Amino acid sequence: MFYLIGLGLGDAKDITVRGLEIVKKCDKVLLEAYTSVLTVGKEVLEDFYNRPLIIADRELCEGNIDDFLKEAKDKDVALLVVGDPLGATTHSDMLLRARQYGVEFQVVHNASIINAVSCCGLQLYNFGETVSIPYWTETWQPDSWFQKIIENFSRNLHTLCLLDIKVKEPTEESLTKKVRQYMDPKFMSVKEAASQLVKVIERNPDSGMTQESLAVGLSRVGSPEQKIAVRSLQVMQDCDLGPPLHSLVIPAPTLHPLELEYLAQFR
Amino acid sequence: MFYLIGLGLGDAKDITVRGLEIVKKCDKVLLEAYTSVLTVGKEVLEDFYNRPLIIADRELCEGNIDDFLKEAKDKDVALLVVGDPLGATTHSDMLLRARQYGVEFQVVHNASIINAVSCCGLQLYNFGETVSIPYWTETWQPDSWFQKIIENFSRNLHTLCLLDIKVKEPTEESLTKKVRQYMDPKFMSVKEAASQLVKVIERNPDSGMTQESLAVGLSRVGSPEQKIAVRSLQVMQDCDLGPPLHSLVIPAPTLHPLELEYLAQFR
Repeated sequence: MFYLIGLGLGDAKDITVRGLEIVKKCDKVLLEAYTSVLTVGKEVLEDFYNRPLIIADRELCEGNIDDFLKEAKDKDVALLVVGDPLGATTHSDMLLRARQYGVEFQVVHNASIINAVSCCGLQLYNFGETVSIPYWTETWQPDSWFQKIIENFSRNLHTLCLLDIKVKEPTEESLTKKVRQYMDPKFMSVKEAASQLVKVIERNPDSGMTQESLAVGLSRVGSPEQKIAVRSLQVMQDCDLGPPLHSLVIPAPTLHPLELEYLAQFR
Repeated sequence: MFYLIGLGLGDAKDITVRGLEIVKKCDKVLLEAYTSVLTVGKEVLEDFYNRPLIIADRELCEGNIDDFLKEAKDKDVALLVVGDPLGATTHSDMLLRARQYGVEFQVVHNASIINAVSCCGLQLYNFGETVSIPYWTETWQPDSWFQKIIENFSRNLHTLCLLDIKVKEPTEESLTKKVRQYMDPKFMSVKEAASQLVKVIERNPDSGMTQESLAVGLSRVGSPEQKIAVRSLQVMQDCDLGPPLHSLVIPAPTLHPLELEYLAQFR
């Protein structure tokens, strides 16, 4: 059996009881380590589960996962994923491949930022399409995500912006070399996201959004160190929310009184 | 301390390890029983936690919850909610009131249908606004939710439709009497939702959707008895997905190849 198990958002104890039972009985347990990260590291999880974990980076997940899937035909193999295990396309793809190999699988769901974002008081049913804000480079500054924010905004819907994560990314130079070199991991902060958003707003003066538009910054949602800040985008550019992971929400222009009251405590 | 704890979607073991620890140490534990229901009942949870639970129906949650909140000033009180605890407005409102009383609170997140719907293979970032489909009566047939489906559909986004739940609803007659009488609990099925949707489509011939439009029916997501069916809306009207809870998804008109491949297994 192949198990895809969500770890939730905070620390080791955010796994479900069902998930923990499976982790303990499996022959092999992999920890996915590139679509998201937990506030605690591999060692803390190993201590909590009392068993070793195999780190599954992008290369393993996209290249060598088939070996593990085939092994799951006769053995119990689990892949642990931060948040909910089906948040990223990679993992649905894995399940399709498991099916091709005739491997049975089970999914153990958990909290994801997609639902836990409700901790800021904005109602889930008022969210529109979720967007991902990528890191810009000097020569590559895509802003198609901004159109989605504007479409949500004009329909009076909130937008959850997932912020870019770069873990074990090969350096540009190394792509042409035989020896792989990796960039230091980096996680986009609310400050950085707000700053990119302000730049796009300046380039699109008729978008309906301005630097004064409200934003909600969130960090380490679901952990005891969770932080939430409600600021104008302009002010958010200087708002330090501490260590990763961060997320940004652009609220609808007109809020429900209960949403307003809830947000007020984070101003 | 007041704890708002998500139970996830399946059975007793879908609570998180952190959630279970809190349930065991609390002075009082309430089980919210009207915004959603678990596939197992109160007794199974009491056995699993080895402690009694107090059923919190709508009257208690909207009327008498303040007594429990005030008690949480000196004691540990938890409210258990199916799915994620902040999915419904009622619970954000409770946290605001806790704050007014000077009561500290913690939220323990868990899986919600909002993210677990990804089990059907449709990607979460392609979902638009979530809608709720209410039970119609002979004289009350609201269809504002249909406009939202159409807006999502025209933007090539999926729509998650949450289906109506009636638990401990006073009968119409009893509203004028002194003695309250309650209707039997009822949970809208995928069949019923598809049938209402087909009626609305017939009334709106230019909506872009037809009886032949694709729908995804889901039942008991996250439990071992989870069922998923992919059918045209017309056929879905006769598709029995077993006991509650049910949800319906209207996929975007154009799907990603991976989404198509994943859905194909449920046709």
